[in-house]
Amino acid sequence: MTSSIECQNIFRSLQLLDLFIKIGVKNLILCPGSRSAPLAIAAGELYKYGILNVFNSIDERSAGFHSLGISTASGDISLVVTTSGSAVGNLLPAAVEADRSCKSIVFITADRPLRLKNCGSNQTVNQEAFLNSVCRSTLSTNLNGIHKNNDDDILKIVKMIKKQLLQSPGPIHLNIPFEKPLDISLKNKRKTLKVFETLYLNKTCKFLKQNEQNKSIHFSKRIFESLDLSNSGIIIVGPYQGSIKDLVSFNNSLEKIQSITGWPVFADPVSGVSADLRGLVENWELIIKKNNNVIKCNQILRLGPLSSSNNLEKFLSDFDGIQILVKENNRRKLDPIKKSLEYEFGLTNFVNQLLGTYSDDQKKKKPLINLVKVLRREGQKISKILNEQIFLNKEITEYKLANFVPKIWPENYPIMLSASSPIRDWLTFSENGTLTRKCFSFRGASGIDGTLSLALGIARITQPLLLVTGDLALIHDINGFLIENSIDLNLTVLLINNNGGNIFNNLYKNNLEKEELKKLFLMPKSINWENLAKAFQVPIKIVSDLNKLPESFEWSLSMQKSVIIKVDINVDNEMKERSLILKKILNN
Amino acid sequence: MTSSIECQNIFRSLQLLDLFIKIGVKNLILCPGSRSAPLAIAAGELYKYGILNVFNSIDERSAGFHSLGISTASGDISLVVTTSGSAVGNLLPAAVEADRSCKSIVFITADRPLRLKNCGSNQTVNQEAFLNSVCRSTLSTNLNGIHKNNDDDILKIVKMIKKQLLQSPGPIHLNIPFEKPLDISLKNKRKTLKVFETLYLNKTCKFLKQNEQNKSIHFSKRIFESLDLSNSGIIIVGPYQGSIKDLVSFNNSLEKIQSITGWPVFADPVSGVSADLRGLVENWELIIKKNNNVIKCNQILRLGPLSSSNNLEKFLSDFDGIQILVKENNRRKLDPIKKSLEYEFGLTNFVNQLLGTYSDDQKKKKPLINLVKVLRREGQKISKILNEQIFLNKEITEYKLANFVPKIWPENYPIMLSASSPIRDWLTFSENGTLTRKCFSFRGASGIDGTLSLALGIARITQPLLLVTGDLALIHDINGFLIENSIDLNLTVLLINNNGGNIFNNLYKNNLEKEELKKLFLMPKSINWENLAKAFQVPIKIVSDLNKLPESFEWSLSMQKSVIIKVDINVDNEMKERSLILKKILNN
Repeated sequence: MTSSIECQNIFRSLQLLDLFIKIGVKNLILCPGSRSAPLAIAAGELYKYGILNVFNSIDERSAGFHSLGISTASGDISLVVTTSGSAVGNLLPAAVEADRSCKSIVFITADRPLRLKNCGSNQTVNQEAFLNSVCRSTLSTNLNGIHKNNDDDILKIVKMIKKQLLQSPGPIHLNIPFEKPLDISLKNKRKTLKVFETLYLNKTCKFLKQNEQNKSIHFSKRIFESLDLSNSGIIIVGPYQGSIKDLVSFNNSLEKIQSITGWPVFADPVSGVSADLRGLVENWELIIKKNNNVIKCNQILRLGPLSSSNNLEKFLSDFDGIQILVKENNRRKLDPIKKSLEYEFGLTNFVNQLLGTYSDDQKKKKPLINLVKVLRREGQKISKILNEQIFLNKEITEYKLANFVPKIWPENYPIMLSASSPIRDWLTFSENGTLTRKCFSFRGASGIDGTLSLALGIARITQPLLLVTGDLALIHDINGFLIENSIDLNLTVLLINNNGGNIFNNLYKNNLEKEELKKLFLMPKSINWENLAKAFQVPIKIVSDLNKLPESFEWSLSMQKSVIIKVDINVDNEMKERSLILKKILNN
Repeated sequence: MTSSIECQNIFRSLQLLDLFIKIGVKNLILCPGSRSAPLAIAAGELYKYGILNVFNSIDERSAGFHSLGISTASGDISLVVTTSGSAVGNLLPAAVEADRSCKSIVFITADRPLRLKNCGSNQTVNQEAFLNSVCRSTLSTNLNGIHKNNDDDILKIVKMIKKQLLQSPGPIHLNIPFEKPLDISLKNKRKTLKVFETLYLNKTCKFLKQNEQNKSIHFSKRIFESLDLSNSGIIIVGPYQGSIKDLVSFNNSLEKIQSITGWPVFADPVSGVSADLRGLVENWELIIKKNNNVIKCNQILRLGPLSSSNNLEKFLSDFDGIQILVKENNRRKLDPIKKSLEYEFGLTNFVNQLLGTYSDDQKKKKPLINLVKVLRREGQKISKILNEQIFLNKEITEYKLANFVPKIWPENYPIMLSASSPIRDWLTFSENGTLTRKCFSFRGASGIDGTLSLALGIARITQPLLLVTGDLALIHDINGFLIENSIDLNLTVLLINNNGGNIFNNLYKNNLEKEELKKLFLMPKSINWENLAKAFQVPIKIVSDLNKLPESFEWSLSMQKSVIIKVDINVDNEMKERSLILKKILNN
């Protein structure tokens, strides 16, 4: 009765998506197309059952990043569904970042059946290979059409994906050939749904519950023996790459190890470290820049990837002692300095294994080591200068924003920093201001692409959210505003308009004519932002006085929807002020 | 003196780009970044020498498509330069289309040197593999940095690329690792340029001139013997995939074979066929839809890929006689119907080889065969109905545009049709109106992505240009307007605003609730187009009366820059009118 291709296409799509729901998927981003119609129709039904959120996005690139934002902020797998052809190619940028930042997304792409492949059929390409270079696995249902698959086939695929993503979170590509007909009559849909309801809907699936044991964890004697916690050291925490679901346990473990060592902690703005951790050092990046010599110790415990800091990189390269690097969820080599021993099973396992070898006495809380005091004194000197300088005039500059914004954006509300200037500025100037809340940045491939869609994805899970971004990063992904109901999410976009890639100003200014610099690097665009915001029905406010920023945040929060707060940067002033303040700090 | 890394990075970049210029490159699209600085600086110098056009684009996806537009309209290879990291991933959509439509682009991507790969270094990914699935070749300069390459290395790479693209036009990925420093002092730049000028600038390069022999062409006896040109047949010309430089020769060959056969010709709107070809049949797609039986013959000569027509596909599938398929530049299988013998060396070679076996008598011009008259009678009946119906009221519908626009857009000015509804509508309703000029569409992967950037790329080569596009296709690639000085190109965008993917209305309307149809397929967006146009400084005019269209074209042409003419489609009326007119045609 429901054995026709028409019914089987929908039925298998329902079964597949339902199994994904059963392994924890809550959100699906749907892109337009016809070959993917059975998946779209199935998603629509699961949405009506109330067990799946479905949002559409006409730009597949933005869809991919939106899904990555959702996965990152929720810790759940999310799905993207596209049609066949070049649509699939548009997923690569988000897949690259998902790969490097170790976040789980399943890209489900509809395809033509085998009989239409490799023969010049319209919109038929070798899409099964497009995401191969970055995906954990590339899988396919039956090449002649999913209607040829049985219950077990579908179950096995989802089980395989679940296992894979438990072991190594990241992107997966699942390509699904569909034979026509792609539509289904109302009558047949009703029949198919009835069978689906009887067999699957809300039924538990034991098969999926099996094999949930954790990845095997090895004890690395060499790593543990090289550390001497009773001696002095530093903990340096880079961008957090683990699942947000493990963040509490990560912080507990960090607290434990800080407690028994008394070591100072250098935390990246997006490290996920809690503001009340003992031993945190403010302005550590500037301290390193100013004077490495105050940092006397012979071991460093590094957590996660390296922060974007040339000063830190140089310090670590020159450092003579032991470096241990503990990674979350990441099997790849993660130390460009190549001086560390890498431990890949996460901080929680690291601390458990390490303390397993310790006596009760060794596990006792220790007072802060002397180095903390030395560093804090340095940090406070810098703080004083920063706080004096920032309100000398009311002009808004990027470094002032990095310092001031985390203090005035409500301390429990999350922030996302785009991967261009903001992440670097905040590392240097934010004085640990972000650590009172979740603070996100996508530091896997560190691209500026997908910025808006990523932020909207995070805002779906946790809002109100503040996005701090430059103008190029925002316009690159302006299609994020076309994602279904995204403009109704409570996202405040702090648009730092420096009219082009200001980050290049410092790098290439000296040796190029002004016009060359613009053409080859800055690439300024004549965008009328007020009109652009109106085009997408997004309220916009321009702020030019630093003191007015708090009330503009109040305004944006009161709107309870996506808004843009634009601040225009005078690039020459910015550079002048910044070098002045740095001089002051370094010479103090 | 210039042997430092700093100088060598620029010197080798200059040499490389200069060699590309010597094999015919005229245009380079530059994307922002720091790792690519030596390439950017070199491109800037070659631009100043006046031997290379350089345009920047902040969105690499748009840059890729822009380059594809340029390559297609010029027949020359064009270059795209990006920085390292996820930037490279954004090139895939254009690379997919360049692969399938067989147009030559070299994607030059900067990368980190080997010592920074696979160790968690910032913005370092396995980018060398990202475009592999669609590129003709993936090449790299020295993995430790291009400064390690010598003269010969660079020469060999360009020679290899030239040979590859002569044999099989398409995308190439050239990945270039750079060691720091990426900037160069003014003094060193001057020195480096001096050496470059002495050794390379405007110097001929014999080495590149060698090996220019054509690809080897095989004579396929089976194909030639199966055709009987003295008997009746049809010539069906699909989208033109050859180089625009070969289009005259293509048309000459077509004219020859039509001349000695007297066969009717069915030409796709983007077939490249000249309007004055003898034997052209108007409204052939509707004739096939109406009544196959009038087409009595037993051989079909097909040129290029299949047009997007279900009617044609069905006709060819049911056709009992011989089908020969002649392809331009394409080595792939190109017949989804799988009933043809495929000849891959292009029409010019086909006709030369075929006529080589003919006597002078056999090569004489023949009168049109009777079938032409039969088909033209049918075509004229349809024409009459179309012309009666179109001005019954002044409301603008999509099928009316397909018929009317090619008649009022100046007959020598090119047109580009986006790969969604327009290409299908024009096939059915344009009455060969496009054949007076070059008419473009990207039918390789047939994606809607990149539409605006492609059109702007074509407009760089041949303007004024008319782009006919739906709203989703235009907004998907709105960043095309951010390509350097693109808004100053003479491009008229005819924006058919049907508020979403109207193409799905026919397909899925019957079995879905209105809200479901919108959410899952149409995905309408609340875009304020007037504001969006203003945001990019693009003039816009809204036209709602069909009779006002000619004067709006006059306005747009007088502007001599990019403008948008928006027509809003009442989707329900469109569907009603269209089914009415089709009924009239089919029952007449």
